Amino acid sequence: MVVPSRLADGRELIYYDDSPEPNRVLIDSRDIPVVEPASVARYDALLGEWVGIAGHRQTRTYHPPANQCPLCPTRATFKTEIPSPDYDVVVFENRFPSFAGEASEPTALPVGADGSDPTGSDVLFREMPGLGRCEVVCFTSDHDAEFADLEPARVNTVIQAWADRTAALNGMPGLHQVFCFVNQGVEIGVTLAHPHGQIYGYPFVTPKTRTMLDNAAAFREATGGNLFGAQLSREITEGIRVVAENDDWVAFVPFAARWPIEVSIYPRQQIPDLPAASAEQRGGLAAIYLDVLHRMGGVFEDTLPAITAIQQAPAHTGRDDFWMHFSVFSIRRAVGKIKYLAGSESGMGAFVNDITPEDAAARLRAVKV
Amino acid sequence: MVVPSRLADGRELIYYDDSPEPNRVLIDSRDIPVVEPASVARYDALLGEWVGIAGHRQTRTYHPPANQCPLCPTRATFKTEIPSPDYDVVVFENRFPSFAGEASEPTALPVGADGSDPTGSDVLFREMPGLGRCEVVCFTSDHDAEFADLEPARVNTVIQAWADRTAALNGMPGLHQVFCFVNQGVEIGVTLAHPHGQIYGYPFVTPKTRTMLDNAAAFREATGGNLFGAQLSREITEGIRVVAENDDWVAFVPFAARWPIEVSIYPRQQIPDLPAASAEQRGGLAAIYLDVLHRMGGVFEDTLPAITAIQQAPAHTGRDDFWMHFSVFSIRRAVGKIKYLAGSESGMGAFVNDITPEDAAARLRAVKV
Repeated sequence: MVVPSRLADGRELIYYDDSPEPNRVLIDSRDIPVVEPASVARYDALLGEWVGIAGHRQTRTYHPPANQCPLCPTRATFKTEIPSPDYDVVVFENRFPSFAGEASEPTALPVGADGSDPTGSDVLFREMPGLGRCEVVCFTSDHDAEFADLEPARVNTVIQAWADRTAALNGMPGLHQVFCFVNQGVEIGVTLAHPHGQIYGYPFVTPKTRTMLDNAAAFREATGGNLFGAQLSREITEGIRVVAENDDWVAFVPFAARWPIEVSIYPRQQIPDLPAASAEQRGGLAAIYLDVLHRMGGVFEDTLPAITAIQQAPAHTGRDDFWMHFSVFSIRRAVGKIKYLAGSESGMGAFVNDITPEDAAARLRAVKV
Repeated sequence: MVVPSRLADGRELIYYDDSPEPNRVLIDSRDIPVVEPASVARYDALLGEWVGIAGHRQTRTYHPPANQCPLCPTRATFKTEIPSPDYDVVVFENRFPSFAGEASEPTALPVGADGSDPTGSDVLFREMPGLGRCEVVCFTSDHDAEFADLEPARVNTVIQAWADRTAALNGMPGLHQVFCFVNQGVEIGVTLAHPHGQIYGYPFVTPKTRTMLDNAAAFREATGGNLFGAQLSREITEGIRVVAENDDWVAFVPFAARWPIEVSIYPRQQIPDLPAASAEQRGGLAAIYLDVLHRMGGVFEDTLPAITAIQQAPAHTGRDDFWMHFSVFSIRRAVGKIKYLAGSESGMGAFVNDITPEDAAARLRAVKV
């Protein structure tokens, strides 16, 4: 069941229920000031990328004590972002968004974001409003839960929320790409311990997606094939980096993995995004995603700082070429040791991975799940 | 004075002296096993980037106690990587390199690294030997020093070493780009406290450099101008983001800065790399680089985890378009707070900066140096 509502300052809040007959409180009785986002997007002409500038976010909530967690259900002693005394999955607009606001009508892709090269001096110092959406997705009302411990039915509800919000944000004028992701662990920079993820709607096509689409288009023109699908076929044929599979999905460590532990989860059949996935595909995704998280958590006897990046097609371009997939990666490279993005990665974009993809896959396969 | 030598396992070691008549010990009397690097470079066809895979590096030295620092001068009680009882600046090959080995003759740019698009199915699963060079640059024999506290004369010697090694590595067959950089602070992942930097010689053109050259070439074709120079002129004209300047150099926060505190240092006249800089330009660079480091250290009453990335032209391509510069950036966003590369940055390549470039520049200018 999907139950939409509004918070006291006007932000959207939506319950996604898997419990029967839940009692949802829809009225937020807090008296909270409206945060005025002041985001812009600026074009870096040297790297051909848009950068978000969000000067208002420095005051965002930072490692609150557990009894003041804004993502827990509201209790008599503390009113949180969620008015209900309980919930299953809930999505709401971030109070401190990196991007915010819709256009009055659909906008064209901004310069550069469609893969076009800069073609004049006006490419310099371009700026546009930082339109977009930033949403928070709470996966459970249990503050101390781990995503990997959720029931498959709950993960199905989460996937429903991701698909539903992807479709909604793709339809908002001025937005060009939706990104659902999960940051996990203080080592990744997570400042709220409560299990949650985020959804960004960007006013541009992100640099990675645009690059993948450029390369997929070149591959299609040269070979007639789909680059994502060709890689998936090769991974299945070679098998040495495959970690898990089921009827609809294959999980593997990519041939040129950047991160110590990195797994891509691809649907066997091409779909552009989660809204295009069938109920059966979503069920299979919940199962294999949990399987991969369990394996990743079992490689090292230590915490698992990790990111799940759900790679989906942009709203208005490249939807025939793109092949949606999950990219799940950890910065844990050994017990007590973290992979940092230092000079080579942050300064040159040149990644060096200390674990071979074949070794990582063998370790992941060896984990008992 | 430049004094070349070899370590016990055959690695190169070179002293760069600014002291008069130094006494350098050239014989390494340790009995140390030879580490056999086993690096490869793999091509990520989706992102069009080469990734280094270096499975032998997990055993590298990690936060040793200060009395076992391998970068200190050798003492009677502990033999280090530097046989001398003292040194000014010393460069030596990293014992645990990400890339190692030369080709027998110059190699062509590998597929993709020259900006060419993938043009066939053979772009999939490409691998080549991880040829290259990884060197360590010790800036002072004083274990507890900070780079920002070095004398300008010493920074001049460091710049001489960077220029000298850039020229040497650019001449090695199989190497296509040299990157001199300084990682600073445990928050950046630095595992040896002794003040030092690194030099990488890559067997490909790095993703960022290649992208900058692609965009510079497109700008030149469209306007006849130089993209780097056009941006520099605009920054000087607008002035609001300029932090420091002297006769030969200008330091500014770039218009689309990605990092909370980020400064670019450009020469007023185009040069491709440090070997092309005159003695006068090098002197001015030492002065403005120290000035920028002092300002960056003064913005927050906290540590300064930072990276200095020296952006230089590749060895064999783009040398007419490229405009060398320093990019100095910190992940410190507030006292006690770090900017992490989480979902949006690591998953999508979409940076969000919480400090506006104009605000960052004002804060940097306000620091008393």
